[in-house]
Amino acid sequence: MKTHTLLMPLDMHLHLRDGVMLENIAPLTAYSFSGALVMPNLVPPVESKEDVIAYKERIMAAVPNDYFEPYMTLFYKNYDKKFLADVAEEITAIKLYPAGITTNSEGGVSSFDIEEMRPTLEAMSQLGIPLCVHGETDGFVMDREAEFMSIYELLAKNFPELKIVMEHITTKAAVDMLDKYPNLYATITVHHLLLTLDDVVGGMMQPHLFCKPIAKRPEDLDALLSVALEAHPKVMFGSDSAPHPRSKKESCGCAAGVFTAPIALQLLCEIFEQFDKLDNLQAFVSDNAQSIYGICPEFKEVTLEKRPFVVPESYSNVVPMYAGETINWAIESVD
Amino acid sequence: MKTHTLLMPLDMHLHLRDGVMLENIAPLTAYSFSGALVMPNLVPPVESKEDVIAYKERIMAAVPNDYFEPYMTLFYKNYDKKFLADVAEEITAIKLYPAGITTNSEGGVSSFDIEEMRPTLEAMSQLGIPLCVHGETDGFVMDREAEFMSIYELLAKNFPELKIVMEHITTKAAVDMLDKYPNLYATITVHHLLLTLDDVVGGMMQPHLFCKPIAKRPEDLDALLSVALEAHPKVMFGSDSAPHPRSKKESCGCAAGVFTAPIALQLLCEIFEQFDKLDNLQAFVSDNAQSIYGICPEFKEVTLEKRPFVVPESYSNVVPMYAGETINWAIESVD
Repeated sequence: MKTHTLLMPLDMHLHLRDGVMLENIAPLTAYSFSGALVMPNLVPPVESKEDVIAYKERIMAAVPNDYFEPYMTLFYKNYDKKFLADVAEEITAIKLYPAGITTNSEGGVSSFDIEEMRPTLEAMSQLGIPLCVHGETDGFVMDREAEFMSIYELLAKNFPELKIVMEHITTKAAVDMLDKYPNLYATITVHHLLLTLDDVVGGMMQPHLFCKPIAKRPEDLDALLSVALEAHPKVMFGSDSAPHPRSKKESCGCAAGVFTAPIALQLLCEIFEQFDKLDNLQAFVSDNAQSIYGICPEFKEVTLEKRPFVVPESYSNVVPMYAGETINWAIESVD
Repeated sequence: MKTHTLLMPLDMHLHLRDGVMLENIAPLTAYSFSGALVMPNLVPPVESKEDVIAYKERIMAAVPNDYFEPYMTLFYKNYDKKFLADVAEEITAIKLYPAGITTNSEGGVSSFDIEEMRPTLEAMSQLGIPLCVHGETDGFVMDREAEFMSIYELLAKNFPELKIVMEHITTKAAVDMLDKYPNLYATITVHHLLLTLDDVVGGMMQPHLFCKPIAKRPEDLDALLSVALEAHPKVMFGSDSAPHPRSKKESCGCAAGVFTAPIALQLLCEIFEQFDKLDNLQAFVSDNAQSIYGICPEFKEVTLEKRPFVVPESYSNVVPMYAGETINWAIESVD
């Protein structure tokens, strides 16, 4: 039977939430990934050194062994350099949200005044703290990411020493930015390598495929696939796996977020194999992130096997992407 | 208090379904409209003279008085002239669905082979039977209507004596076609005068605003408003009000259709007043349709009043658009 082994898989954009949800879902990622960059948009957000340390402790308490590293992030605000120097060793990045743009982002940045942000972003540059960005404006839903490109350009030009990660990119416009500025990087989710808006609202309306940024046009999907499949060195896997209880997804006014953590590696094998690019998956799912972030993850060897795997209908009260459907790769062993 | 009176309002695109659903919803339209063009996409579709007569009888049995005229339609197939001549007096139009493109359209047209369709469409031209078309391809969801324009052009050029109604148009591309061919007309829904894709998936996902064709971009909304508000003589109101039981809307895999029949006139008053175009509403909601179809509807005088009206949470088991929200016009009297 065909197998494929991945070393130290990393999920460089993950929502673990808190409380019971954290306890239910963190073990799923800890099982198959060496580490994950954990988003700070809790309620209230993670915005102090104490918050970071306490959240990391809660995550470690929720996972069954110590072969998993939560790479912590701080919720972006205009912080002073003293604070940043003090918190630097506890965090891997700072995550910036435009205010109100997605789940629990109300306390984010409401205007991109570069001069107001300069002290913080210069301190981050000097301390080597990368900036992760949810890059959407509040414009028309299909244009929000493309409209944000001018802000990426502003940030990239003004802070050439700052590593800026365009998170969960969904458009050709964002792909085209990658080679334009040396300090711009990107994460790509697995669902954005599979979906267009057609899958979300082209037939029936599919709440479990509804996320922000929303899946875009076929030509955008093609652009994302092109850089992911070649494992473009500035691109990393980040699932943006975002659990919501079933009741918040299958209701009038469905929350945004696709839950992929426990099926991400299987789906990635399926996609990369389909395009005969399995050899590039290691770089996309680990090596590139190690280089970009300068991290050395815990050793973990995950072997996947090409055999039918029926995606569970739910993981506790969270419905995963493709629930009940069969995918062609399964996790065979984790060492 | 400000009032506005409409004479013989007509809904030139309506889904009345059958059975209990028909009994529940037909009276809502019969109350405030003089007549409605009733879509034939039942299961199985309305495709014989007997079907038409029997369906009309079921509709009339479901409405409480005789001041309402259901204008009947036949489901398009390639019919021969003898059949069409025989059925002509029972129908107002024939409705063409591309196969599988929307609810109960599986038996529709699967390829637009003009020569295969020619005998039917020439007979319709000679008999003066208009062709109503659901104009969408099976392409990417945001492009389906624009892609269909070449088929409208093909039909309009090949059958210059055939009245062709572009149903429930949603794009600037369709609006631009109106003045290009003398035999092309259009219906516009009330929800497409209010919504863009932003309202459907830009914040939370909103199943009760999900329909086919899906609401498009802001520039499309502007184009639709421009011809509706001026009551362009080739444009008519057609609600495309499409009831589904609540269980089919608020679930995983939500059905397409917005239910507006009982609130359409109120919303139209609100929109036309907002743009200071109330004087044009009579043409949009009745006079244009009378001219285009050559119909003389039953007398009905509907007076609306500008006062707050809370949209009911449901009509039997059907949730209307804007359920629970307040709109600014209410029906005051119907004579």
